[in-house]
Amino acid sequence: MSDSLVPETRVLAVASHVAYGHVGNTMATFVMQSLGCEVAALNTVNFSNHTGYRQFKGTRATAQEISDIYQGLCLSNLTDFDVMLSGYAPSAAAVEAVGAIGIDLQQRAEKKPGSFFWVLDPVMGDQGRLYVNDDVVPAYKKIIHHADLILPNQFEAEVLSGIKITSLATLAEAITAIHRIYSVPHVIITSVQLFKLSTSGSTPSPPDNFLTVIGSTTKSNGSPRLFRVDIPALDCFFSGTGDMFAALTVARLREAVDAAGDDLRNTRSWVSPDDVPSSKLPLAQSTIKVLSSMHSVLERTVEARDAELAKNIPTQNGDVNPEEKQKREHLRRTKAAEVRLVRNTRFLRDPPSQFEVQEWNKEDLPAHLQ
Amino acid sequence: MSDSLVPETRVLAVASHVAYGHVGNTMATFVMQSLGCEVAALNTVNFSNHTGYRQFKGTRATAQEISDIYQGLCLSNLTDFDVMLSGYAPSAAAVEAVGAIGIDLQQRAEKKPGSFFWVLDPVMGDQGRLYVNDDVVPAYKKIIHHADLILPNQFEAEVLSGIKITSLATLAEAITAIHRIYSVPHVIITSVQLFKLSTSGSTPSPPDNFLTVIGSTTKSNGSPRLFRVDIPALDCFFSGTGDMFAALTVARLREAVDAAGDDLRNTRSWVSPDDVPSSKLPLAQSTIKVLSSMHSVLERTVEARDAELAKNIPTQNGDVNPEEKQKREHLRRTKAAEVRLVRNTRFLRDPPSQFEVQEWNKEDLPAHLQ
Repeated sequence: MSDSLVPETRVLAVASHVAYGHVGNTMATFVMQSLGCEVAALNTVNFSNHTGYRQFKGTRATAQEISDIYQGLCLSNLTDFDVMLSGYAPSAAAVEAVGAIGIDLQQRAEKKPGSFFWVLDPVMGDQGRLYVNDDVVPAYKKIIHHADLILPNQFEAEVLSGIKITSLATLAEAITAIHRIYSVPHVIITSVQLFKLSTSGSTPSPPDNFLTVIGSTTKSNGSPRLFRVDIPALDCFFSGTGDMFAALTVARLREAVDAAGDDLRNTRSWVSPDDVPSSKLPLAQSTIKVLSSMHSVLERTVEARDAELAKNIPTQNGDVNPEEKQKREHLRRTKAAEVRLVRNTRFLRDPPSQFEVQEWNKEDLPAHLQ
Repeated sequence: MSDSLVPETRVLAVASHVAYGHVGNTMATFVMQSLGCEVAALNTVNFSNHTGYRQFKGTRATAQEISDIYQGLCLSNLTDFDVMLSGYAPSAAAVEAVGAIGIDLQQRAEKKPGSFFWVLDPVMGDQGRLYVNDDVVPAYKKIIHHADLILPNQFEAEVLSGIKITSLATLAEAITAIHRIYSVPHVIITSVQLFKLSTSGSTPSPPDNFLTVIGSTTKSNGSPRLFRVDIPALDCFFSGTGDMFAALTVARLREAVDAAGDDLRNTRSWVSPDDVPSSKLPLAQSTIKVLSSMHSVLERTVEARDAELAKNIPTQNGDVNPEEKQKREHLRRTKAAEVRLVRNTRFLRDPPSQFEVQEWNKEDLPAHLQ
């Protein structure tokens, strides 16, 4: 492929739009386009900036508006998507509308197994807290069994599985439960803090120096094939990294499945034969490239953030009250931490090979973690 | 610059969003990002597809919604834009709202000449016909004198100048009038069909085998410095090429001004000293790169269109009425002509040098064209 592009892929991306910065579709669209994917962005909200700034202006799309845009695509025969990536939807009705789109695209592809693949990021909350209305949870639970791959974070995996993740063993149980309850063939749990798990689960601990990503593709009997990738943690909170992970995964999974050959490409949900070990799964191979790209871009982001914060030290704060001063400082720090995407696309296109995937079986765990 | 990127540039892009295909911001955002610009996309409409399909679904932003998004940016100190690119706005009130944004950004940059530049594409119509409400024209006429560069097509230049362009001489007069009436220092008239001009102006003629782009930067006395670039015409109508031209111009003009040095970069509106001849203007140097990128991408688009049309020949049209058959064929052809952007970014980043810019003075014209 010229320009380090992945195989031609048409993606319907359903997520939020922000004018400033990179989250939701404003992250995912450019990331997938940079790798050569043709992306149709169906925006579920239209905000000035991401909510990490703690203030924003703009509007949320209604379920009807989301359905209307899709209907417009149907009317003009513009539904030839290979992949749908669905992220944040602003209400339970909007989640249902997105679900109806995924199901419709799936039905259109019914006669050609493997010709359509749905990656669903069940955006509901993080760090033990829901940030959507309560009724969004059952709405997701209804549609997830149609998805091919879901990308919950640790908290969302707990909500979906009903299992509190306090150890590697319960993590494995949660993934097994997600495969079983929702018949979803591929799962990745993004950024699990194993250090927190391996000590007491409830007390706050300092950030460890690495994060772990755990994924699995089912075997034909429904049992998981688990793999893990450990990556050094960066000392910064970035908005939009979940969307970056999802977008890169769309492109890299498509590439890995294509490399595996016609048989897999024409298999429903791209599920590898049982004799493929977890570390050789397209999902695992994709994940190491995804994390490598992300780590490189985020390292550059930390450098740029530090340079920006050192350069733009506020000077005229003498006459403002402490609350206003604190607010301005928060805005300044949030802006400085925006992911430096557009000038680092070389790391998206050509990830340095720096991480390794490990097969991971429950039996391999040290006894005290089981 | 690594990756063939232009100097760091923060752009506020105000134009339409479509889910499928590439027009408005859905064209401009990716083009500018590919060249390394940080782009904030403020979307003025949210449609399923461009109007060339003759049907679409979606919503138009109200003037209030446009102003609100901008206010959100102001509240969080996210207005550090170097350039604003404004395109289609769906009503006279929306044009005024966009104008107010441009004026506000200009005022914020007042003390640092050259630190903010407004590129305005006065989207009103084409081919002798307005496709906006009549009241949009006076709304544009009010805001254009704040812009630094405007990019009308031939018809829009006629509307703005009040001069019917029927010859090269009247074309020069129209540009001179635009400089004078609106005090706008830079103008480019995109795609003038000189063949049509040099024969009888009113009878329809077959497409000539080249198009001409004419631009000018004023001298300090207000007189124009005209240049022209001739490019081979392609036998296809593409939607979004005006937006592509505008987006590439933002990036390449910024690059050319940067290359000219600090003096020009810190000059209000980036107007070159009087001794710079028209062919050496940053606007002229930028235009040849812009057109080269466009020509390469559109050549690939024609090839891909032809391949797609040859491949997907409709088979099941026996039982549909002629009207429906014609409609389907129009949709098929429109889709096939979508600009092939994402897999051809190498031509955006590294345009082959294939076109030349000519200085052009009224006196140089052959007598029969004056």
